[in-house]
Amino acid sequence: MFNKICIIGVGLIGGSIARAARKQNLCQNISAFGREQDLDNLKRAKELGVIDSYSTELSEAVKDADCVIIATPVGAMPAIFKQLHKHWSENTLYMDAGSTKGSVIAALKSAFSDIPQNFVPAHPIAGAENSGVDAARDDLYINKRLILTPVAETASEFIQLAEDFWRKIGSSITQMDVEQHDAVLAATSHLPHILAFSLVNFLGKKDETADIFKYAAGGFKDFTRIASSDPTMWIDICRANKQQIIPLIEQLCAELNTVKAKLEEDESQALYDSFSYANQARQRFLDQQ
Amino acid sequence: MFNKICIIGVGLIGGSIARAARKQNLCQNISAFGREQDLDNLKRAKELGVIDSYSTELSEAVKDADCVIIATPVGAMPAIFKQLHKHWSENTLYMDAGSTKGSVIAALKSAFSDIPQNFVPAHPIAGAENSGVDAARDDLYINKRLILTPVAETASEFIQLAEDFWRKIGSSITQMDVEQHDAVLAATSHLPHILAFSLVNFLGKKDETADIFKYAAGGFKDFTRIASSDPTMWIDICRANKQQIIPLIEQLCAELNTVKAKLEEDESQALYDSFSYANQARQRFLDQQ
Repeated sequence: MFNKICIIGVGLIGGSIARAARKQNLCQNISAFGREQDLDNLKRAKELGVIDSYSTELSEAVKDADCVIIATPVGAMPAIFKQLHKHWSENTLYMDAGSTKGSVIAALKSAFSDIPQNFVPAHPIAGAENSGVDAARDDLYINKRLILTPVAETASEFIQLAEDFWRKIGSSITQMDVEQHDAVLAATSHLPHILAFSLVNFLGKKDETADIFKYAAGGFKDFTRIASSDPTMWIDICRANKQQIIPLIEQLCAELNTVKAKLEEDESQALYDSFSYANQARQRFLDQQ
Repeated sequence: MFNKICIIGVGLIGGSIARAARKQNLCQNISAFGREQDLDNLKRAKELGVIDSYSTELSEAVKDADCVIIATPVGAMPAIFKQLHKHWSENTLYMDAGSTKGSVIAALKSAFSDIPQNFVPAHPIAGAENSGVDAARDDLYINKRLILTPVAETASEFIQLAEDFWRKIGSSITQMDVEQHDAVLAATSHLPHILAFSLVNFLGKKDETADIFKYAAGGFKDFTRIASSDPTMWIDICRANKQQIIPLIEQLCAELNTVKAKLEEDESQALYDSFSYANQARQRFLDQQ
């Protein structure tokens, strides 16, 4: 499908794209770009066979690549796009794999005078609480959703090529507009992560003085799993999508205050209705999986 | 160990105690008590071999039992204790399995002039999001914590007997006082459940109009698992322990408001510190498992 794929940012997401592309024979060669401080990680990626070569020179890493995938934390993308601009090829498919899309479009607008027609914004809805290239797996995207958010400038031939690639590594493709993507993901992913980080932060401080964690059960383990996600990546996501996230935090606090008021007033029926609704809503979610 | 165990409330918790006691040969016979409206469940429990017999007459169900375990939702216990009072036996070990302990002690005080010396308040830290006798398992308590919260009136011989029983079905025993138990569990269990119910309630309403659940990933599934818990049981727990829970809701909202303010002000370092702390705190929790 491609001669050479260049992965910018070989962590869990980028590394898993590389592994999956190789497994499905979608390219001859995989290179990677990273900064000086990423050298250990790049070496490890080569050692693991995730990539064939790497360079800390962008021009070297992307040379002759017909597919370039930016899989860095979203906060690193504005700088990456500015560097990429100098080495842009009109015939290459460029994609990102970021969890926020408005910020990616804004960064493209800032780095390029016009958004390039061969950049297809993509977000694989897949991940794990482990991060780094050691956690990369060739099956990470199998039966997972992949959201493309092309803009008016994006050429249909490159959208088609992007769809082909993701479908071949197992994803099921949805297209939506940038704003819808960021609203949906703020609700189903970003807010839950903030909640998990906030709860564990709050309880962690209690645990230091009162030793509470040892009495926590399996439910707590599942509930807090996402608090083991990579903080750097999540700071970036939260900052990049804060316009969507901040109102959701406010609305959730309002919801919690309603529960609090119902508890204070012993409004059992209203509490029952709201817990039951949640129970049924989660079943609706499970039925869609 | 016992001649006859009587289980009051044969759901996931009570049914799993019965299955585990039988597997470990801790009794000859297991009876159950339930109300008229519980008849289908009692029949099912007998059909599954979880219990040997049942009755909707309490006097009949507890007759000659040398161990009685109350495994109903905590909200049902005050009425149960009042009925049990009339059929009390001084030589029988009585235990509950409730998730809140202050409410159990208060209900005992209200039903008995003095708290009986042969009642040992117990809380197995185990459960599942499934409920009902069909979900009962003989290994539910293996390697799980069991907290006993004896009070001044509780006789040491009965505490010993309770410890023996729970140890034989696989639990690791801790004793703590009632207030500490309720504070610890409010933080590690009750607050997370309220958060999960509240989040899914909030997002469920969005999903009705905006179809967001189908873009939710594995992290969301884990994070919301406890929102599939039994609403009736959780209303009871929340009401029974609301004095502990309400301040925690307030403190968590304050924490969320801090995150919101940091996002608004782009205080990345402070956000990073708090997410990193949470990440490390969860690791500390995992290391204790």
